[in-house]
Parts: sequence; structure tokens; C-alpha cells
Amino acid sequence: MKSLSKWLPRAPILDWGRRYNREAASGDLVAAVIVTIMLIPQSLAYALLAGLPAEVGIYASIAPLIAYAIFGTSSVLAVGPVAVASLMTASAIGQFAVLGSVEYWHAAMVLAFMSGAMLLLLGVLRLGFFANFLSHPVVSGFISASGLIIAASQLKTLLGIKAEGHNLFELLVSIAGKISQTHLHTLLLGLGATAFLFWVRKGLKPMLMQLGLTARIADVIAKTGPVAAIAVTTLLVWRFDLHTNGVKIVGTVPQGLPPLTLPTWNPQLWQQLFVPALLISVVGFVESVSVGQTLAAKRRQRIEPDQELVALGASNIAAALTGGFPVTGGFARSVVNFDAGALTPAAGVFTAIGLMLASLFLTPVLYYLPQATLAATIIVAVLSLVDLGILKRTWSYSKPDFVAGAGTLLATLIMGVETGLIVGVAISIGAYLFRTSRPHIAVLGWVPGTEHFRNVQRHAVVTSPTVLGLRVDENLYFANARYLEDRVNDTVAAHPLLRHVVLQCAAISDIDASALESLEAIEHRLQAAGICLHLSEVKGPVMDRLQASDFLQHLSGKVFLTHYQAIASLAPEVFAQEGELRVTSKASSLAAAIKA
Amino acid sequence: MKSLSKWLPRAPILDWGRRYNREAASGDLVAAVIVTIMLIPQSLAYALLAGLPAEVGIYASIAPLIAYAIFGTSSVLAVGPVAVASLMTASAIGQFAVLGSVEYWHAAMVLAFMSGAMLLLLGVLRLGFFANFLSHPVVSGFISASGLIIAASQLKTLLGIKAEGHNLFELLVSIAGKISQTHLHTLLLGLGATAFLFWVRKGLKPMLMQLGLTARIADVIAKTGPVAAIAVTTLLVWRFDLHTNGVKIVGTVPQGLPPLTLPTWNPQLWQQLFVPALLISVVGFVESVSVGQTLAAKRRQRIEPDQELVALGASNIAAALTGGFPVTGGFARSVVNFDAGALTPAAGVFTAIGLMLASLFLTPVLYYLPQATLAATIIVAVLSLVDLGILKRTWSYSKPDFVAGAGTLLATLIMGVETGLIVGVAISIGAYLFRTSRPHIAVLGWVPGTEHFRNVQRHAVVTSPTVLGLRVDENLYFANARYLEDRVNDTVAAHPLLRHVVLQCAAISDIDASALESLEAIEHRLQAAGICLHLSEVKGPVMDRLQASDFLQHLSGKVFLTHYQAIASLAPEVFAQEGELRVTSKASSLAAAIKA
Repeated sequence: MKSLSKWLPRAPILDWGRRYNREAASGDLVAAVIVTIMLIPQSLAYALLAGLPAEVGIYASIAPLIAYAIFGTSSVLAVGPVAVASLMTASAIGQFAVLGSVEYWHAAMVLAFMSGAMLLLLGVLRLGFFANFLSHPVVSGFISASGLIIAASQLKTLLGIKAEGHNLFELLVSIAGKISQTHLHTLLLGLGATAFLFWVRKGLKPMLMQLGLTARIADVIAKTGPVAAIAVTTLLVWRFDLHTNGVKIVGTVPQGLPPLTLPTWNPQLWQQLFVPALLISVVGFVESVSVGQTLAAKRRQRIEPDQELVALGASNIAAALTGGFPVTGGFARSVVNFDAGALTPAAGVFTAIGLMLASLFLTPVLYYLPQATLAATIIVAVLSLVDLGILKRTWSYSKPDFVAGAGTLLATLIMGVETGLIVGVAISIGAYLFRTSRPHIAVLGWVPGTEHFRNVQRHAVVTSPTVLGLRVDENLYFANARYLEDRVNDTVAAHPLLRHVVLQCAAISDIDASALESLEAIEHRLQAAGICLHLSEVKGPVMDRLQASDFLQHLSGKVFLTHYQAIASLAPEVFAQEGELRVTSKASSLAAAIKA
Repeated sequence: MKSLSKWLPRAPILDWGRRYNREAASGDLVAAVIVTIMLIPQSLAYALLAGLPAEVGIYASIAPLIAYAIFGTSSVLAVGPVAVASLMTASAIGQFAVLGSVEYWHAAMVLAFMSGAMLLLLGVLRLGFFANFLSHPVVSGFISASGLIIAASQLKTLLGIKAEGHNLFELLVSIAGKISQTHLHTLLLGLGATAFLFWVRKGLKPMLMQLGLTARIADVIAKTGPVAAIAVTTLLVWRFDLHTNGVKIVGTVPQGLPPLTLPTWNPQLWQQLFVPALLISVVGFVESVSVGQTLAAKRRQRIEPDQELVALGASNIAAALTGGFPVTGGFARSVVNFDAGALTPAAGVFTAIGLMLASLFLTPVLYYLPQATLAATIIVAVLSLVDLGILKRTWSYSKPDFVAGAGTLLATLIMGVETGLIVGVAISIGAYLFRTSRPHIAVLGWVPGTEHFRNVQRHAVVTSPTVLGLRVDENLYFANARYLEDRVNDTVAAHPLLRHVVLQCAAISDIDASALESLEAIEHRLQAAGICLHLSEVKGPVMDRLQASDFLQHLSGKVFLTHYQAIASLAPEVFAQEGELRVTSKASSLAAAIKA
């Protein structure tokens, strides 16, 4: 039974639902009201960013929240449209469907469905570790680039002009070319909203705290800033008839609950959307899990990545079945939910109910809402995603990581989100293989007074001219097998006194078939030169594997448990030199040869 | 000066040429005569395999040999058309040009030129290690599959029918469908030649040795078997006018020296041939270097991979400029050269002269040579490339290597040589990342009487309930950073007595930026739970890098030179238990939690 049920998706709601009580409910309700108010403008804005009608953003924030509440393991993660996934949706569908057409919307639902199915499959098969192949530098480079692209794309709405471009530079050039067509009233509304929102972010909270409010309440009030901006600019448009003057407004948003929809079956479209759906899934999962883990850690809770895949998969399928588009766990909304005191996923269900009510009764109020205000909320939100400082920190820590991060950033800006992400993953994997293809190889000497052997170039150690101790600081596998062969051959050829080579294997966790062939080649050549090859400190799993081959039967030397035992057996005179500690010149020249 | 001359290609001929003497010349001359005789049928056969006129095979065996003699580092490697590169040439050009057309031949020269330029560039930039990304299982799977495809493609010539197919199965189905059209005389000639060549390979040498010849001479005579087959079948066709009866013959082979040619400039063609040229370069290089290394080792010599890139690059450019097609160091011809006693690359120059003479005077003799005989020589030669036994050996040693080898074999058979090779490389890299994404993590205990700490599950060791020693058997990098976080968190959560965690870093040669973030996350969570994180046996390069970050400043614990010192400082009571050795139940349950 265990083995079968292991493969069935679990529903954590069955655990926390049983223990649900009035105290939790009151916390969840308060949080839900605040998150609902915040989500209305955000959902509209991200739907427009994805190239979809505004109401689709609200649809995508209802059913997915309920699905996540059933399957999710985070108590505070809020699922819905997010900036990066919306940009990726626009980029994926824009290639195959005309903006504003019904086909475009249908394609968005198909994208959500495929992405959901992929996430579900990965979750059921427990393949969540796949997301680990997105390294931190790649993710942060990608998110920063996405933030810049989104901000640039909203600039045209803020200016009230039309502009297009397949990448950031084309877009900026196009905007610069039409800057003389800027619509003044739109610009004033947009700039006003942007300035107000920046002030809310930076200045309002300290002010409220000076007025005596607690940090938490000040924070929550500051998060409702976008709603104030929307109310004020909507009233301005309505009062002064600015829309007749050319200010673009949201217009009629249909009233009513999300529709029930089925993704259209079009094999060609599904094939075209396969790669974009996969990329959206992986990026969405990484974003969601990192938000969920950060918040869970603050309450000493844990989330389960594989179950999160199931929950996000269910959320996206729920979005596809209710007229929505790809969703994931959002940072801003989850933080608000957390700060407002949500205790269980029931807060998500209450938020969904709030949004349903808004979708039923509130949409007429949004008629006069200027699109420039939504653009302002997006710009302010995404600029916080842009973190170029991390490039500087990565530069000082690790050059290959810097190359991966900066490469992803540039590739995304120049080639767009999909190619940029793929290029980033390729760079980070290539850089790792490159690094491990020329492993650090240390010549070992004895640290007097201990049983330890360290690099002759870094420590004051004792060595023997007839026994060479080598430590390879890497797994032996195809990318570095021939390198090891070359280095050992070079060293041995240069030192005719040698009788024994001891390979200290403490840093070797794997020897693949290619490396085994190289070891055999090394062994043959050493044997022909009258030198014995020994191994020391071979780890259990590696030893198991070597014993499955016939390598150990042909080995001219022995396998020692510790390097100390190896030297004690092959060159005990080394330990007699304790009184007269010296780094022999032999050791230095060996080390130089190895480095060469 | 050194720094500049480092980047200029060297010409090893300047070294060995100065020391050249009569003794070397006589060895080289004898070898050259034997190799010339062997190369005539082989060159014709591989040109036909590549879809080119027979004489192109001779052209491709002249100038490249001279270029290699100037730049190469192997004393016996013989460069020219080989089976796998010829198949890859046919596969690459067949997509863009009609078989037998002048464009087809021109494209072959472009392919040789591009491949030569790439090899030269890789050599000058010392990027030979790129070839290491082709693991042994991938190369052997690819070579076996190529051998099967080549043998199948020659089957139709042997049967005297026409058949086509984009992969092995289509080809076999096509042949099966037309088997009733088999041309009897062609089949008899072909089967006769095949049987004779197999007997020459297996039976002739032992027979000659029984007659009193030395093994070396018997070997050399056996290698001239194809020439005998050609002579006999050519005479049969001529005597009985079999060509008027439908037996396909080589026909008119133009007499004369190789033409001087320039690769045609056609940007679209160059773009289309880019990936095939790269793959041919890499495969050719790997094949050539492994042949060269094997033979050099037998004479205690060495070859220099980066200089070999230069030599092969020059050889391919030489082929492109003299009407040839992609070439590389061939196994069979190099072994014959070696066995026949070649001592320096001058043997290659003498062979080139021999082939020039053949090209000037011998081609009329080849008029009646049946194509079926050439097919027979190819089939017998390539079947020795097929080694399915290696799959079985790999299976018992390493499953991921088996998957890479079998995957390459199948992908090549089903999807063709180019896609097959790319799939193989992707599988082997993916398998390596997958393996390292879930590293082996051992809980350490003290081995009494030593200063060593080993896995509690494999050794009789002593542990402390308050200090947990962990050894991670892998570099910490993006693919496994989150896994480490999860495992450490799980273990610590299950063991409330813990006060200290010591991460033994002897197997960690690299900590990338993603893993550093995970270490910081681990440190924060441990600190919050009142547990100190320590490191022990950190390697020099890793320590350098950690010191460039601020991680060590925030670290709650210390960095110990040895794990022994860490335990001596944090839990000295462990060493008091020497008399009463036991594996504590604590240790086992910790180990179980880590494994979970």
C-alpha cells in the first residue's frame, strides 16, 4: 500500500483542515481582506502585461488560490499572476496569435494547462530537483533582465504612445523615436502615480511609525498604496472627462464569475507552446519555492518542494479551466499575506471569495481607471526585482558564477526571455564542466605531529623522493579523465627516483567508466616504468564500484585505509624526519611539474 | 617573445628532421610501400562511402599526409579518409546537394576546409580539452552505431540493388523490399570477397606463422589481403566481361595529380555545414588522438593533443585545397604503418609520394574493379568497430555510463549520426549532473586508535550525541545546494540534543555562489536553533574563496584544520571511549535520518 500511495498526490488540507479553529480563522480573514484589496489592481495590471483583457487577471486569481489551499504545503503562499510569468506568457503567445484576439486568450489557457500538467507530472514523479539546474546567478540575472524589460514595456503606456520591439533595445529605440507623440495628460497621471507609489514604498512607512503606529500596521497600510493611487486617478479621469481627451482607460470589465473553459485542442499550437510552457513551469516553480521557503523559515516551518509542484500544477490547471493564464506563487502578495497575519491556506480561500465578490460587483467602478496608473504600479513593483548589485558580489566570489549571471542578464535583454534562460542554463552547466575538467591536483606531504598529509605548496610538510602522494580534488569523470592521465604521466616522466605513486582518494566520490579507463592506462604506464600505483582513503561507494570491475585485480599496488598507513608502509623514513622539518626541494619540483 | 611564440603553431618536423638518418629512412620506406598498397583500395572505398568519385579518396590521402608530417607529434599516425568521418560527410552533404553532382564535391571540400579551420583554431587556443566532453561510452556507442550503419549501407552494393533510408531501420526495410532484385554475379563476387577477407583476418596469420614466418611479417602480409581480393575480382570481371552483365565497376578513374582547389564561398552552405563540420572535427580528433596515444604508448613516446589539433587542422585544409574531403588519423592504416616499422612522420611523406605515383599511373588498372569488392573491404573493416560487449561491461560498472552509451547507440541508429552524437553528449552531461545532484552524505564517527573519522554505517566507530560530523562527498554547487540544505535541516530537526555540526570538507573542491547561499541559509537556521556550524579540513582553494566572501565572519563556529582537532575541541569525551568501542544507536539513527 505504501508503495502505491507514495505515487498519489496528497492533499495537506486534510491535515490542517481538521485542526482549523476560530483563532486561525480570524487571522486568516483579516489577511484575506488586505490581500484582496491589494490583488485587484495587481491582477488587472499583470493581465494587461500578458496581453490579455484586464478581467482575466481576476479570473486567474480565484480558482488557483483554492487549488493551492487544497494541495499546497506553505501556510502563506499566495498564488496568482506574477510579473515574470506574465511577461513570459506574452512572449510565448505573441509569436503565434494576434494581441487582443480570442485565439490569444485561448492560447494563454492552453499554456496554463500545459504548464500545470508538466508541474503535476514532475511532482508525482518527484522530479523537483530539476529546478536546481537553475543556479542562483542564472535566476537572479534572469529576474533582473525581466524586470528591466517589463519596466521598459510599461514606459510606452506611461507616455501614452505606441511602441514595439522584440528585445529591450529595439523597444527603447522605438519609444525614443516616438517620444514627441507623448500624451501630456497621460504622462502627468502616470508620473504622478509613479512618484506617489515610490514615496509610499520609501517614505510612508517611516512617517506612519513616527505617528505611533506599529511597524506591522504601517507596513500593511503602505502596501495598500496602489489602491489609493487607483482611486485618486480614477476619480480625476471621471471628474475631468480625461478619457475623451485621449487618456486610455481600462473601460468595460465584464461583471460575473470566472467562466468554465476547456483548453482548445490544436496539436500544432500545443507543440509550439511546449518549450515556453516548460520554461514558465520551471521559473514559476523556482520563484514560488524560494518565496515559500523564505517565509516558512521565518516561522520555523518547512515546505515540501515535490508537493509544491503538485499544488502549483493543480493551480495552473484550475486557471486553465476558469479562463485564466499561467500563475505561480508571488513574492509581494505572499509577503502581504504573511505580514497581515495569515495562519493557514484558508486565507487563500477567503481571498478567492473576496475576489469573486469584486468580480461580481466592483468591476463597473474600474471603468475610468487609467491604464497609466496600472503601468505605474507595475513599474514600481518590478524595479524592486532588478538587483544588479548581486553581479558585483558574485564577481568577487566566483568568476564562473559571474559569467553565468551576467550572461543570462545580457542574453535575456538581447534575445528575449526564452532564449535568455536557455543560454543561462547552458552557460552555468558549461562553466561547471569546464571548472571540473582541470581539477586541482596537490602533491601531499606529511604534517609532522599529526596523521595528516597536506599540499606541499601550502603547508610545511615532509616528503619522500621515492613515494609520490597525489590528491585529486575532483570526481574522476569523462571531462577530466584525460587531464589526470596527462598530469600523472608528465610528473612521473620527470622523476626517475620514484618507486610508488599513492593516489589519495578522499575527494573522489565517483569514478565513471571513462575515468576507469584512464586509471587503467595510468596503471599500465606506471607498471611499465617499474612504479607501483596505490590508492588510499577510497570512499565506500567508490570502493564498491571498483570491486565490481577487475581494476583492483590488476593493480600493482595496494589500497590503504588511510594515507598515513600508506606512507608508514612504503616510506616509513618520512616520519623519522620529525626533528628536522623541511620541505624538500624534491617536493617543490614535483609540485611544479604537477602544476605545469 | 615566449608569450608570443606560445600562440604560434609549431612544426615538429624541425626537430626530428634534423636528426633524420639512413636507418630511419629505410624503416620509413619499407612501411610506406606497404601502407601505399593498403591505402589504394581503402581510399577508393571510403570516397564511394562518402558519396564522392573514387579518385577523391586518393587525393585526400596525399596532401594531408604531408601536412601531418610537418605538424604532427605522432611518429606513426597515418592521416586520410576514415570510415566514420566518411559516413558523417555523406550524412552532412546529402541534405544539401545531389549525390554525384559537382556541388556535392564542392560541399565536401568546404566541409574539410571548415573542419580544418576549426581544428586549427582549437589547437592555437589550446582548447583540446573540449574533446573530453565526449565520454568513452558515448564515443564507443557512436562508433558502434556508425559501423552498423556503414555495413548496412554497403549491403546494397554487395547485393547489386538500389536502396535508401535516413536511418538504419529505413535502410534495412528498403533493402529487404528489394532483395528479390539481387544481382547474382555481383552477390557472388561480393560474398566471395567478404569471405576471403574474413579468412585473411582470422585464418591467414596463424597459417603463415605455422609456415615459419614471424608474427610481424605474417601480420603485414595479412594486411595486404584487400589488394589480393581486388586483383582477383578485377581479373574475373575483365576476363568474363561481367560488367556487360550488370556488375557495377569503378570505371574510368582520371589519371593525374590532385587538382589545386579553393573552397567555394557560399554563406548559406557554410552556415548549414557549421554544426556537421564541428561534429566531424571533434569525432575525428578523438579518434585520431586515441589511436595516436595507443601507438605512442607502445614505444614509450607521447603525443601532444593541442599540437595534434593543429596538425589535423592543417591536414584537413590541405585536403580542401587539393580536391579532397574530411580526413583524420585512421586506426587500421596507422597500425599497419607501426607494424611495418615506420620510425618517423617521413613514412607519411613517402606514402604520399607512392600514392601520387599510383594516381599518375595506376588508375587505368582500376577500371574493371567491381564496386562490390570495395563494399566487402568496407564491411569487413567497419564490423571490427562494432563492440557491443562494452555495453555489458559498462552495465556492470556504472548504470549512468551504460545509459549514455546505449542512448548514443540507439539515438545514432534511429536519428542519424549528427543528432545521435548530440543526444549522446546531452545524456552523459545530464547523467553526471543528476548523479552529483544527490551527493552521498556520510555521518562520521571516530576510528579508535587513529586520527580518522569514517562513515558510521560502514565502520566500527565512536560518536557523540551532541556533535554531528557530516561529510558531503561532492562539490557544493547549484545542482545539489538545495539538497544539502534539506538533508541538514531534516537531520537537525530530528535530534534535539545537538549542539554542534561539523561539516568535514575534504571532498569539497568547490563551493559556487548558489551553494554559498545555501550554506548561509543552513548557518542561519542552525544558529536560530542554538547549534553552531563548524567546518573542518577545508582545502586551500576553497578557503581562499570563502575568505573573499563574508561567510566566515558570520560563521557561529570555527574552521578546524583537521576533523580530529574539531572533535578534540568540541567533544573530547569521544576519545575516552577507546576501551569500550561501540557504534552508538544515536549514530545509527542520525545516519538513517540523513539517508531518508
